Amino acid sequence: MKEQEHILVIGAGLCGSLLALRLAQRGYKVSLVEKRPDLRSTDISAGRSINLAFSDRGIKAMNLVGLKGKAKDLCIPMHGRMIHNLEQEEYLSRYSGLESEYINSISRSDLNALLLDEAEKMPDVNILFNQACIDVDLQNAKATFEDFTSKEKSTIEADIILGTDGAGSVVRKSMLEDNLFLFSFSQDYLSHGYKELTIPATKDGGFRIEKNALHIWPRGENMVIALPNLDGSFTVTLFLSYEEGEDNFKSLDTSEKVKAYFEKMYPSAVAHMPTLTEDFFNNPTSPLGTVKCSPWNSFGKVMLLGDAAHAIVPFYGQGMNASFEDVVVFDEILDNYEGDWQKVFKEYQKKRKVDTDAIAELAIDNFHEMKEHTAAPIFQKKRKLETAFEQEFPKEYASKYRLVTFQEDISYSEALKKGRAQDKAILNLLAQDKIDENASLQEKLHLVNKETQEILEEDAVLKTN
Amino acid sequence: MKEQEHILVIGAGLCGSLLALRLAQRGYKVSLVEKRPDLRSTDISAGRSINLAFSDRGIKAMNLVGLKGKAKDLCIPMHGRMIHNLEQEEYLSRYSGLESEYINSISRSDLNALLLDEAEKMPDVNILFNQACIDVDLQNAKATFEDFTSKEKSTIEADIILGTDGAGSVVRKSMLEDNLFLFSFSQDYLSHGYKELTIPATKDGGFRIEKNALHIWPRGENMVIALPNLDGSFTVTLFLSYEEGEDNFKSLDTSEKVKAYFEKMYPSAVAHMPTLTEDFFNNPTSPLGTVKCSPWNSFGKVMLLGDAAHAIVPFYGQGMNASFEDVVVFDEILDNYEGDWQKVFKEYQKKRKVDTDAIAELAIDNFHEMKEHTAAPIFQKKRKLETAFEQEFPKEYASKYRLVTFQEDISYSEALKKGRAQDKAILNLLAQDKIDENASLQEKLHLVNKETQEILEEDAVLKTN
Repeated sequence: MKEQEHILVIGAGLCGSLLALRLAQRGYKVSLVEKRPDLRSTDISAGRSINLAFSDRGIKAMNLVGLKGKAKDLCIPMHGRMIHNLEQEEYLSRYSGLESEYINSISRSDLNALLLDEAEKMPDVNILFNQACIDVDLQNAKATFEDFTSKEKSTIEADIILGTDGAGSVVRKSMLEDNLFLFSFSQDYLSHGYKELTIPATKDGGFRIEKNALHIWPRGENMVIALPNLDGSFTVTLFLSYEEGEDNFKSLDTSEKVKAYFEKMYPSAVAHMPTLTEDFFNNPTSPLGTVKCSPWNSFGKVMLLGDAAHAIVPFYGQGMNASFEDVVVFDEILDNYEGDWQKVFKEYQKKRKVDTDAIAELAIDNFHEMKEHTAAPIFQKKRKLETAFEQEFPKEYASKYRLVTFQEDISYSEALKKGRAQDKAILNLLAQDKIDENASLQEKLHLVNKETQEILEEDAVLKTN
Repeated sequence: MKEQEHILVIGAGLCGSLLALRLAQRGYKVSLVEKRPDLRSTDISAGRSINLAFSDRGIKAMNLVGLKGKAKDLCIPMHGRMIHNLEQEEYLSRYSGLESEYINSISRSDLNALLLDEAEKMPDVNILFNQACIDVDLQNAKATFEDFTSKEKSTIEADIILGTDGAGSVVRKSMLEDNLFLFSFSQDYLSHGYKELTIPATKDGGFRIEKNALHIWPRGENMVIALPNLDGSFTVTLFLSYEEGEDNFKSLDTSEKVKAYFEKMYPSAVAHMPTLTEDFFNNPTSPLGTVKCSPWNSFGKVMLLGDAAHAIVPFYGQGMNASFEDVVVFDEILDNYEGDWQKVFKEYQKKRKVDTDAIAELAIDNFHEMKEHTAAPIFQKKRKLETAFEQEFPKEYASKYRLVTFQEDISYSEALKKGRAQDKAILNLLAQDKIDENASLQEKLHLVNKETQEILEEDAVLKTN
């Protein structure tokens, strides 16, 4: 860097706070501006995404900024999916054949607070709260903000602006509305919405159900999941159709109906949910959307990262991990091209977009897998086989889930390609009864790998010819 | 119908004019309102999409309204792609093994004029030109228009509104901006744009190159195509990257550069293009976009059809055909559910969206196929085999192109599924040298069909389990 450059980061959520910290570590002057109040002094998380799944890609980013240890202190390990069927039985489907591989439940606000604390310690970081971005001058890297209380407007001019203002990004909106370049954009909603509910801690602060698991009650069209919190409670999420099917968000309009629905469909969950109907009517119903856009930068002056560039549905537990990985990739690109923002932005998107598109697709796939397939016999057979492969041959086999979640050195797009081919191979071999029960595990693995390779080669012909 | 209902159709392009005519034939009172002047008395087509590919799905719609014969009078049959390579050789790649199957070049304005003439003859159709829609009250089926000349505003209220106002639809925009329901929306641009150019007729009104073909000069990343007009001229379209590659729309900024580029890449075309550089700088460069959205209707009062609901790139020659097929499908749904608009709109989208999504995908695939694959040896081998199948066994085999273009009773989504599996089967068999040159054509067909069936079954396992 010749002179110290000034970067304006709009949005101090998880991605923006991490990014601001990293940029300050690299020597930039950073202004980090947030619409909401400081979450370290105000409770603003009520009813939405209280905890998150945190895994290896996210951990890699925390390691980059030197906070891996502090982040780990906030984590509750979850070793697998605890599946609860309608007969009130439960069984654990492990995420990996390896003991050392698990995902974590982490509080969104605790993690955000940690990042803000660390960013604030940097001398060249200035954090402003309660400042809503209302306009971005894309060509001149200038943004206007309105103070929440005084309604006074102020303008910040920087060398570049990075927009990390989430799925509803104002920075992105200004790109969409600018007519000086072609801007591809999509917002896609599922027919389902979600609502957060609670399983409280026991009186002595204990966990009412297994602590170290992500609980799922898959019910075909809809499902309930629960993730543990450090205080002994679980944050429960109901994924339910807005309007379709017998029971849906529109039809469940009285406490009686909500209670009856849960008692019919989720008896083993409702037993632990004393505040079910209050939660149901107090907490918002939120949509499940995927947002994509391109290009991520305008005029080499303003660029989007995190959910602002690629919001995804939560079913792979990768939303925050993907946003954190953005910062890691951006940092690598800076290592190579620092000094030429136009080039940095272009190379970043070239490397990154294929992967954020891939995780968006994987997340939607997993929605169907979680609510339908986790309970299907052929899927359970597949998982059992994959878990055995991973236990016996951890270096020779990694399931799609393991590739996505625990192999942070493999890109999402590679994980998608290989993972899907493996899934198809195993399901076809099982459906066609081609896996000899008496064969050794090694022979089975060989068969699966051979079939996978054939699928990959056959798919490639369509693309390269 | 109890009382005669009033339908407001916004947009009197091809789809809107056809729709208005059909609705009047069914007994509705129709107001058809158009932003532009009457194209029958003003030349407004200069420089953009002068002619179109018209095929069996479009013809089916013209048949529905009793205009098949009159439309046919406007058509120039094109039996295949005339491929022009860089060595200035040309060869015809037929669209079908059957003589009776071909596509047509038709003038957009002639066809639109025919539809307007016929709609105007209906006593209950009122057509207004020069009225730009500026606002739609979705819940009350009320739209406001501004007169082009007087700037006076007027409001039309109807029982329902159908928006057929094209890719830049104002009706769709009002759905996107309304915040009362979740509206999924995407606009996706290719990195290429297009520009229309001309090959004029000979002095005596003859055709300078083969009349009955769609000409293509495929050049890997970019291409030129040409479609014949009744007056002996060809409308030529250059598809070129905006910014990538050695030559692109940004870099070709002088007459000398344009000329040099064409002489290097398209020598056999430029020989027939005396006005190349004037055309190049007078005509606009237009983007190639795909638009999707959902739901197509708001409040059971307003619905989108045609490009307003699903704009696609032009590479399958199906844009207008798909919009016309919309009217056929809508008419079928009316046969079943007339009297309940909410139901009509819902059932229409349920049946139709999967197909318009499919043709959008197929059209993008064909972009790559046309500019790259038409010249590749393995692709030519495949086409040769498929043409032979179609000639010998027209009932047993239909290529993807034939399914999409000439088999109007098969839906686009079915055509996509089957056509892609066939492509993959043949390409893999060819790549793996599994087709015995000495086998009979019947044996080869059997092999391809078997391989296709296996691919379809293996794909199905992933989806149903």
